[in-house]
Amino acid sequence: MKKRRKLGRGVAVVGAGMSPFGMYKDKNSKDLFVEAFTELLASVDKGFDPNDIDALYLGNFTNDFFIHQSHWGPIISDLVGLTPKPATRTEGACASSALAFREGVFAIASGFYDVVLVGGLEEMSKRTTEEVAEGLALATVPYEGQAGFTFPGVFGAVATAYFAKYGANREHLMNVTIKSHNNAPLNPKAQFPLTIRDMMNKKIESAKKKGADVPGWADEKEFLGDLRANPVVAWPMHLFDCCPISDGASCMLLVGEEIAKNFTDDPISVAGIGQGSGRGLHACDDLTFFEATRYAASEAYGMSGLGPQDVQFAEVHDCFSIAEILHIEDLGFFKPGEGHKAVAEGMTRLDGSKPINTSGGLKCKGHPVGATGISQLYEVWTQLRGKAGKRQVPAADLRIGAAHNLGGTGGTCTFTIFERR
Amino acid sequence: MKKRRKLGRGVAVVGAGMSPFGMYKDKNSKDLFVEAFTELLASVDKGFDPNDIDALYLGNFTNDFFIHQSHWGPIISDLVGLTPKPATRTEGACASSALAFREGVFAIASGFYDVVLVGGLEEMSKRTTEEVAEGLALATVPYEGQAGFTFPGVFGAVATAYFAKYGANREHLMNVTIKSHNNAPLNPKAQFPLTIRDMMNKKIESAKKKGADVPGWADEKEFLGDLRANPVVAWPMHLFDCCPISDGASCMLLVGEEIAKNFTDDPISVAGIGQGSGRGLHACDDLTFFEATRYAASEAYGMSGLGPQDVQFAEVHDCFSIAEILHIEDLGFFKPGEGHKAVAEGMTRLDGSKPINTSGGLKCKGHPVGATGISQLYEVWTQLRGKAGKRQVPAADLRIGAAHNLGGTGGTCTFTIFERR
Repeated sequence: MKKRRKLGRGVAVVGAGMSPFGMYKDKNSKDLFVEAFTELLASVDKGFDPNDIDALYLGNFTNDFFIHQSHWGPIISDLVGLTPKPATRTEGACASSALAFREGVFAIASGFYDVVLVGGLEEMSKRTTEEVAEGLALATVPYEGQAGFTFPGVFGAVATAYFAKYGANREHLMNVTIKSHNNAPLNPKAQFPLTIRDMMNKKIESAKKKGADVPGWADEKEFLGDLRANPVVAWPMHLFDCCPISDGASCMLLVGEEIAKNFTDDPISVAGIGQGSGRGLHACDDLTFFEATRYAASEAYGMSGLGPQDVQFAEVHDCFSIAEILHIEDLGFFKPGEGHKAVAEGMTRLDGSKPINTSGGLKCKGHPVGATGISQLYEVWTQLRGKAGKRQVPAADLRIGAAHNLGGTGGTCTFTIFERR
Repeated sequence: MKKRRKLGRGVAVVGAGMSPFGMYKDKNSKDLFVEAFTELLASVDKGFDPNDIDALYLGNFTNDFFIHQSHWGPIISDLVGLTPKPATRTEGACASSALAFREGVFAIASGFYDVVLVGGLEEMSKRTTEEVAEGLALATVPYEGQAGFTFPGVFGAVATAYFAKYGANREHLMNVTIKSHNNAPLNPKAQFPLTIRDMMNKKIESAKKKGADVPGWADEKEFLGDLRANPVVAWPMHLFDCCPISDGASCMLLVGEEIAKNFTDDPISVAGIGQGSGRGLHACDDLTFFEATRYAASEAYGMSGLGPQDVQFAEVHDCFSIAEILHIEDLGFFKPGEGHKAVAEGMTRLDGSKPINTSGGLKCKGHPVGATGISQLYEVWTQLRGKAGKRQVPAADLRIGAAHNLGGTGGTCTFTIFERR
C-alpha cells in the first residue's frame, strides 16, 4: 500500500456492552442484543441520551437461513428506540460486526453523523451441529464448498501446510488451546470458563466416582493427546482446536473525537482501521498466511503511524488454534514461522510480552459469528480502560491494543487499533 | 430532524453500468456483475486504471438462501481484480445496494479512500415463484410474517387504506402501470419492453388468429380491468400492479469530488443522501405513508439545501403500483392524498412536470432486489448526462434528479439526490 490513509475526523469509543456468550435455548437475538445494549447504556461514564444516537450499523451472518428472518437493521433499530433513524446491516461472514464497526467509523469521520451505535448478533444454537456446519460453509468461496470443505477441513489443511513448512506439530496447537483456556475462567462472560487442567481433573474425579478406569493423564498435553478426551474433527484439528457454536450480541458507541469528553473522561480513540479481502484456498500458492490479514494490517498501521511493536496486546481471530498462530505472524507480532515458538515460550500468555486473546478468544469466550468482531473490540476497550478485572493485562502503561477479525476462509479480514490518549 | 447534516468532503459519480434485467437461466450472479462492470469501465469518459479502486461495497439480499452462497464481497472483489482490497456486503432487503452506495459515499467523504466501486446483484429466477415469495418475506418484520403476510398482501392492505382515506380506486393504480409501461419500450435494458396497449393488441391478434372469441377491450383500462388479462394477486393488487422476479447487477464508480475531473469533464455530484428505518405495519396508526421514506427525504433535502420542488425527475420504488403513489407524496413531490391525482393528470409522465420512473420502474425495468438501488441511480446519472436516448427527460436544463429505494415493508428507505454542477 503506497498511500497513508487518514480520516478527516477522529472517532472515539465512549461505551460498549456485550451479552454473555453461550448456547441459550431460551433467548433470541433480540433478548441478547438488549443485554448488550443495557450494559452499553450503563458504561457511558457521564451518561447520555439514547435519542442522540444518529444511526445504527449491525453485523449478522446467519439469521437469514438459521432463523428465517432477514433485514435485522430496522428490527434492532426499533428494539432500541431509534426508528426512524437509519439502520444498516453488514455481512462479511464471521467478520460481520467488524464491518459494522468500520462503517460506523466512516459515517462519523465523514462528518454526517456524530453519534453512532454499532453492534452484532448471532443466534446459532437452535440448529443442529450439522446444520451449523453446512450453513457456515456458505461463507467459503465457491471452489472450497464444491470440493466438500467445511471450516474444520479448511483449517486442517492450513495447519498441515504450516506443519510441513515450519516443522511445527500438534503440541504447538495445544499450547494455544491451553493458554486460551487459562484466560477464560477470568472472563465472566466466557462460554467455557474452565482451564484444560480443570476439565482433566473433573474427568478423573468422575471416573473415580464411577469406579471406572482412571485415565492416567500426567498433564494437559497428555489429556489433549488422548482421543477419548479430544477426538479428531479434521486432522490435525481436534475438538479442542475448534471454537464452539454460540449465541450472543455485542455493541459499541462511537462519537466524533472532539465531543468524546461529553460522554466520558476516558474515551478510547480509533487509532487505525484496516480491512482486506481474500480469494480462498484454490488461489493460494502458500496456505501459511492470510493475504487479507496482511492487507488489513498494512492499512491500520499506515493510518495510525504505529507498528506491530507498539501494539501491547491483541484479540486475534482464533476460530481454530492454527488461525491464532498464523495471524500473530500476519499482523507482524512475530516473524513468519515464529508464531508457534512464541506461543510455546509463553509470550502470548496474559503475563507474557504480547498477550493474545485475554478474553479467552473465540475458543473459550465463544463465537456467535456476527457478534464476534465487536466483542473483540469490547475486550480491547475494557483492557485499555483498566476494567478487565482478574484478566487485566498487567503492563504498567497500557495504551495501545488491537483486534483482528476474520470472515470465511480469509475472504474478509479486519484489523483495528485502539489507543488511550 | 434538527441538524443539517453535511459531508466533510464532496463525492461525485464518474462511471456506472448495469446488466440488462430479466430472467436468465443461463447467467449467474458473476456473469451479470461482469456485464455491469464492463459497461462501467467504458463509461468513464477519460478512462481510468481499475487498480486505482480502493474498495468495494456490494448490496445483495437473497443469495444466501436462494443460491446457497454468502459472503459475496470477496467473491466480487476477486472477480473484478480488487483482491486484497476490502469488500463489504450490505443488506437492507430490496434497498441493499442503495446502502452499498451510501457506505461508498461515507468511505470517500471520511477521507480514507479516494475511489470506491459500489454495486449490487441478485439471482432470483432459478427459484419458483412460491420460493421467491416465501424468501422475500424474510424481510418483512416479524409480526407481518407471523400473520401470514407476503409482499403483495402488505401492499394490498396499504392500497386499501389509501383508497379509504383519499377516495382513490383501482383506476388510479392503472394509471401508474400504464405510465411505466409507456416508458419501458424506450429503455433497452427493461425486462418488459411493451406498453399495455401493445400487450392488449397482441392478445387481440392472437385471439383472432386462433379463431377464438376476440376480447372487446376498448382501451388499456378495460384490459387491466379484465380478470382474464390481469388476475388478482392480493386485492387490490392485480398482476400488473406487481413488479416481476428478476436477475441483474448494477455498479457505480465514486470518487472524491476534487479529483472527479481526472475521470470525466461531466461528473455528477452527490448533492444529498438520506436513509431511514421503519417499524412495520403493526406499529403504524396510518398505512398511507412510510415514515422511513419521510425521514430519508428530510436527511437528503437537509444536506443538499434543496427541496422537492428542485428535483426535476426521480426514480421511485414502485415494487407495487400503490407504492409509487405513496412515495411521491412522502418525498414531498405532491401533498398527501394528491399523488393519485397527479398521476391521473399526467404529471409523472416522461413529458410531465415531474417525470417518475423514466426507466420503466421496478414494474417494467425489473427488480433484481439487490441490484435495484444502484440501477435507479444509474438511471438518474444517465438522464443528468443527457444520455438516456429515447427516454431522455425533455427539460431544457436538466440539473437535479433523485432516486428513492425501499427495503421490506418500509424497514429501510433511502433517498439520494444527484446534481450536475
